[in-house]
Formats: sequence, C-alpha cells, structure tokens
Amino acid sequence: MLAEIITVGDELLLGQTIDTNSAWMGEKLALAGIAVERITTLSDEPAALVAALDLALESRGLVLITGGLGPTVDDRTKQVLSTYFKAPLVQNDEVLADITHWFSSRGFPMLPSNVDQALLPDTCEVLPNPQGTAQGMWFTVEGTDQVVVSMPGVPYEMKGIMVDEVIPRLVARFSLPTRYHRTVLTQGIGESFLSQHVASWEVGLVNRGVSIAYLPAPGQVRVRLSAVSEIRDEAILRVEQELSDFKLQCGDWIVSDVEGESLAEALVRTFTDERMTFAVAESCTGGAIAASITAIPGSSACFVGGVVSYVNQVKINLLGVSPDTLEAHGAVSESVVKEMAEGALHTTGADFALATSGIAGPGGGSEHIPVGTIWISIAGLNGVEARLLHFGQNRIRNIEKTRLEGQAWLLRKLKEYKSAVD
Amino acid sequence: MLAEIITVGDELLLGQTIDTNSAWMGEKLALAGIAVERITTLSDEPAALVAALDLALESRGLVLITGGLGPTVDDRTKQVLSTYFKAPLVQNDEVLADITHWFSSRGFPMLPSNVDQALLPDTCEVLPNPQGTAQGMWFTVEGTDQVVVSMPGVPYEMKGIMVDEVIPRLVARFSLPTRYHRTVLTQGIGESFLSQHVASWEVGLVNRGVSIAYLPAPGQVRVRLSAVSEIRDEAILRVEQELSDFKLQCGDWIVSDVEGESLAEALVRTFTDERMTFAVAESCTGGAIAASITAIPGSSACFVGGVVSYVNQVKINLLGVSPDTLEAHGAVSESVVKEMAEGALHTTGADFALATSGIAGPGGGSEHIPVGTIWISIAGLNGVEARLLHFGQNRIRNIEKTRLEGQAWLLRKLKEYKSAVD
Repeated sequence: MLAEIITVGDELLLGQTIDTNSAWMGEKLALAGIAVERITTLSDEPAALVAALDLALESRGLVLITGGLGPTVDDRTKQVLSTYFKAPLVQNDEVLADITHWFSSRGFPMLPSNVDQALLPDTCEVLPNPQGTAQGMWFTVEGTDQVVVSMPGVPYEMKGIMVDEVIPRLVARFSLPTRYHRTVLTQGIGESFLSQHVASWEVGLVNRGVSIAYLPAPGQVRVRLSAVSEIRDEAILRVEQELSDFKLQCGDWIVSDVEGESLAEALVRTFTDERMTFAVAESCTGGAIAASITAIPGSSACFVGGVVSYVNQVKINLLGVSPDTLEAHGAVSESVVKEMAEGALHTTGADFALATSGIAGPGGGSEHIPVGTIWISIAGLNGVEARLLHFGQNRIRNIEKTRLEGQAWLLRKLKEYKSAVD
Repeated sequence: MLAEIITVGDELLLGQTIDTNSAWMGEKLALAGIAVERITTLSDEPAALVAALDLALESRGLVLITGGLGPTVDDRTKQVLSTYFKAPLVQNDEVLADITHWFSSRGFPMLPSNVDQALLPDTCEVLPNPQGTAQGMWFTVEGTDQVVVSMPGVPYEMKGIMVDEVIPRLVARFSLPTRYHRTVLTQGIGESFLSQHVASWEVGLVNRGVSIAYLPAPGQVRVRLSAVSEIRDEAILRVEQELSDFKLQCGDWIVSDVEGESLAEALVRTFTDERMTFAVAESCTGGAIAASITAIPGSSACFVGGVVSYVNQVKINLLGVSPDTLEAHGAVSESVVKEMAEGALHTTGADFALATSGIAGPGGGSEHIPVGTIWISIAGLNGVEARLLHFGQNRIRNIEKTRLEGQAWLLRKLKEYKSAVD
C-alpha cells in the first residue's frame, strides 16, 4: 500500500511555516503499514493541485491532502476537489449545525464565509472535525479502490481527524494486517554503539518476526520494536518477548519504556510515584532543566523549584556557596557544584537536588577549563556526588546535553536509593 | 525565475526527521527574487530522483536538491546526478586534500568511503563545504540556462553552502535585481489589528514601491518591508523611509528593529548596552524566562539569575515572601507576585527583577482563579508594579505568552527608566 502526501499553502513555499504535518503523518502511516512514497508541497494555485493529483493517482492507492480548507479566498482545495471529482457542493445541515454551535459556544460572530464551510462535495464522506470549522473529506476514485482524503492544515485539527477517522477507515478498507510496536528511550549511548552492543540478538530478530528501528535524537536514541501479524495477540507476544531481551541487555541505558515518553516526563512520573521531591541549582544550564520539568502538567507534585545562579553572588546569597570555595577552586569546579547541590537541598527542603556549573560557550573558556567543561552534582538522601562532563563548542547543544545527562543521572540515583531502602 | 526544491531521504518519508531545510531555503530564495513553486520529498531510490528531475526541468529554471550525499550505501544522489548529466566521477585532488585535513585535524580515522567523497562528476562546479565532507555540486543543463544544485541534507552544512556559494552565483548568473528588506518584531498586537492600525499608510505602499509581509509567530508578528530596484541605494532609501513611518505609528509594539533578532536577544542587547542587570522569580513559567535568556551567548553580562519558586516554601525561604501574604491572598495574587519581584531584586542585587505567578494549567484552576490567570510583576529602579494577564487552557502556550509579555514589559520599563534619567 503506497501513499502520497500533498501539502498546500503559499506559506510553506515562502518558508513562513515549517511543514511538520508530513513527518507526523508519515510516521503514523508507516506504523499502520502504509508507506509514503512522496511528499509534494504546492502553492494555493488550483492547477497545481489538479496536476499533482493526476500524477499521484497514476501509481498511489492513497493520497492525503492537507491545507487550503480555511474560510478565506486563498483557500481553494475544496473547490478544486469538487470539480475534480465532479461532486457539486451542497449544504450539509448537520455540519452547519455543528459550525453554528462552534461559534455560538465561543461567543464569536459567524460570517457568511463560515456558513460556506458547510457546503461540501456531494459524493464525499464527511470526516468530522470537532476542533475546527473545516471538515475532513474522504473521496473514492470512481472505478478504482483509490482513496483521496482532504484535511485542514492546522496540525491539531489534522491529527484529530487522522487518529479518529482516517487511520481506522484505512485499516478497515484495505484489510491491513495488525501491527504492534513498543518503543523504549535510551540515553548515554550512541546509535551505532547500541546496535553493536546487541549485535548477536539483533541478527536473528528478523527471522523471529520482529523489526527494529533506531530513531536518534540529540543525546538519545529511541528504539522501536514492531511486528506484523494476522493475529494481534501473536504480534504482541513476539514484540514483548524481544523487548524483555533488549531490556536485559541494555537496562543501564533505558530511561523510559512508556510509549512516547520523554526523559523529563519519566523523571516527573517516577518521582511522583515514589512521593519524592527534587530541586535544581542551575548555573550553565540557566533554567533549562527547570523549564523542561515545569512544561509537564502535574510536575508541581514532585518539583519544588530552585535557583538559577548565573553569577557568583547568587551562588553565595541564595545557595550558601562559600566565597572561599569560589576563590580557591573557581565556579566551574567539583567543590562548588557540590556546594550548590547541597545548598539547594538545604534551602528548598527537597529530597534530591541537581546542580550544574560549566562553560556552555562560545565565550568564557580558558586553556585549563575549555568551553564544554561541565560539572554536575546530585545531593540527596544517598549523599552528594559530582561528575565531570566534556562536550563541544555549541552552546545550545551543551546546555541540552547537560540537561539530559543530569536528568538521567537523577533518575538512576532515585532508583538506586529506592532499591537500597526497599 | 521559478525553482523547485527536492529533498531526498527515507527518514523524511518515515517521519523520523522533520524537513526544516525547505522552509529555510524557500525564504532565502524568495528574498533573492526566486519563487519556489514546488517542494518534493523522495525516498533514497534513484529512479524516484530521476523522475522528479525530469518533471522539475520541464518548467523550472532552478532545481535545488538536498540529501543523499553522505558516505554510506543509502546515499546515492551523487551517483544519480553523475549518470543523469553523463558526467563520470573523477577524483578531485583539492577536495581530497580538504577531506584528509578535515579528518586529521579532528583526530578521526579516514575510511575508504570518505576517500570516495572526493570523487565528483567531471562537469560540475564544486561548491566547497568547509563544515563537512560532502561537497555541493552545481550543474548546468546542456543547451539550456537551467541549473541543478545538489547539497548535503545536514542543515548547517546546507545553509553555509547556500549563503556562501549558491545565492551569490544565482544573483550573478540570472542578473536578479537588487532586493532590500528590513524586518521589525512587534509584540502584543495581532496581525489583523496591526494591519488595521496602519491601514491608510499600507494602502499606498505598493504604489510607493515597497511591499509588506506580516509573518506571525505565537504572540508576536514580524513585519517585513522590501523593495526591488536596479539601483541598490534606491531600494534602501524606499524601505528605510517607509520603515520610519511604520515605527512612528507602531513604536509602542516594536520590541526589536534588528534583523532576525528575537525578543530575548533584544532584551539582552539592551540591558548589556545600558550596563544594567536583571533577575527573575518564576513560579508559573518555571524557568522558561531564565532558559530563553541564558540560551543567548553573552547573556551573563546582564542576567544574574534568580529563583524558580514552584512551591510556596521556596517563595518564603528564597524570596522572602511573607507567609501571611500567602495565607491572606494566595500565591496567585498581586501582593505575592510583587513580593516575589522585590525579593529577587533584594537577594540578587540586580537592577530589575521580573516575577510570574499564575495557573498555567491544565489542572489547578478554580472558579475564582481559572486556568490562564497569571500575575506578572517588575521591581526595579523605578519602583514595583504588577499586571494581571488572562490566557487560555493550553499550558505550553500560557508559559510562552507569559514569558513574551514579561520580557516585552521589562524592555519597556528599562527604556522608560533610561529616558526619565537621561
């Protein structure tokens, strides 16, 4: 089953908007067993869409279009599809009632162009969009089993229609076999080293009916195991069995085995489950650790806050770091980062505290302490420790890598403490 | 002058990588006067690239290809282009010397596949890539003035080759007229309201030879004025004149008139220029304000740090907020946010302090203080003030909007102070 994605909009060609829809759709379709063979991005010009549809339907069974469904004059996808499929626009009373309700419930005035959004091609199946006023449309190409789907370009509206309407219909219509997958998040080992570590297990994986994908992100690798089977339970059994083997071999690097969970989310979940709290004392990461934690709903259950100690006086005043230690060792040192972690622990009353102090760059480095030299420390119920990290020249990457390394270490420290006391 | 962008790589179709290159290239080409008419994303399969090239060259004068130039077996773009343009691969000694130096200077071993990267089609012009080992290639289609350019898919390598090699060659080769543009960043007013505010000025803009683009981002609008002329000084004069008029009308909302500068960068630049410092006391923004500031190189010149006071005890212990005030008014209140700002000012010794306290959501709201209720306060050389903001239900957007509103206000406060004392 091959598919093409067509995204419509001048703003995509002019670089005013980055197309994130296609990647999201590509992943979801791949997991359903449908391979995207081409993505085409077009202007709002009707002739361009007609030509792209002709070309796509030469060889693809499925065409998914996003964009061009808004109420303004530059949105012409619906009109093009009405003509292309010889399906005149007729008013859909149910959709009109939904749109009317959408506006009245928000207290917004309804314009004639919004009423027109209830005009839909008469042969299409309407794919309801509860989050907006532009409906999804499902067309079957006459005399074939090819399908053309049109959705709005607003990402959360498109995602809702894909998950609730399109994917279930595709699975039913094309009798796609059951696919089952699990992903785990690893941290602290590169993709090629990870693959080498499990080489002997990996080599037989295909014969055991499971495929593996390494999805690298900066500093992390997400590993996905998937299986296809006519019988759902069999696919599940195969994947779960191999996942157990993988975890036995790579447990030290796994920071989450919850589908799609980030490291920060795993940290918040684990601390909350254990009814433990933590604080931060951030120098070179400058608030990035706190910000990634507090972006997560419910993080206040385990995160108490902390200090961004960007200058030495703040380290002294707020964290109780000794001026003598700063004088003797400098801010980027084992002694200072430990005092920062202990200070944060003491002043906030949290169970654990994570501290960072280093040279993020690009300036501020010296011969003895070059850019990328970063100390991290954890103080907590099992004492205080510090580690020295060496990264490169890129400021943003140094901050992000320090955050990930620190959060992964904090997660391990909590687990060590729990297994020691249990 | 019409162009097509072709991006190559299975990872783009599978959704493992979001294509950010095309939007960046689309914007740069538009500014140079070249319109991208289509973006096509393909697999690593050679036949797909050949078919896409044939189609693109039917109607486009310029085709830009990214991806498929790495040293591994799935990278086949160079081989396809060699065959397509009947240009055998020959070793380029200069490139080989550069690649050899690239590896030796980093202490990495050089593999045979890296030596092969010095094999290049004999008729192409090499576009040097100082940041990597895959070179850019510039082909002229025989018997036409059409151009095909191939670049690596790594964003910073592609960007370097575009800026240093491709754009200057395109301008020279196609005698593109001079374009000049300036952008300003506005904050606190929506796109349509901004356009309405300057309606009478805007209506005559085209006749005065200047075009305007509104580039909206969450909470902000970037406004770009541009002009095209055979004479560069004339284009500059026209744009600068209109920009002055725009600034007179919209000065209150302009947070930066430096090309491409973000609000956080404008804040750091202005505080540094004025030799002033600031601190933060973040409750609902949870470190996001500090993190956006410290992501900027050199921010330590004006940013001293601060406190993430996620729980009340941290507000009391680290910021000196009175337990009585918390008891009487609650954490999300004018009194508490002012005490937070004053506490941060006092304890860090900065010239200004910005504080936030609110309900970011999705949980934690009540009938009296619903999700999206957020207090911000600034304490500093001109006293202490607080403002109440009302946002929606989305946690991430609430945090981001509060950050922007707070930073824009802090920038205004500093300017007010400076104009009062000067």
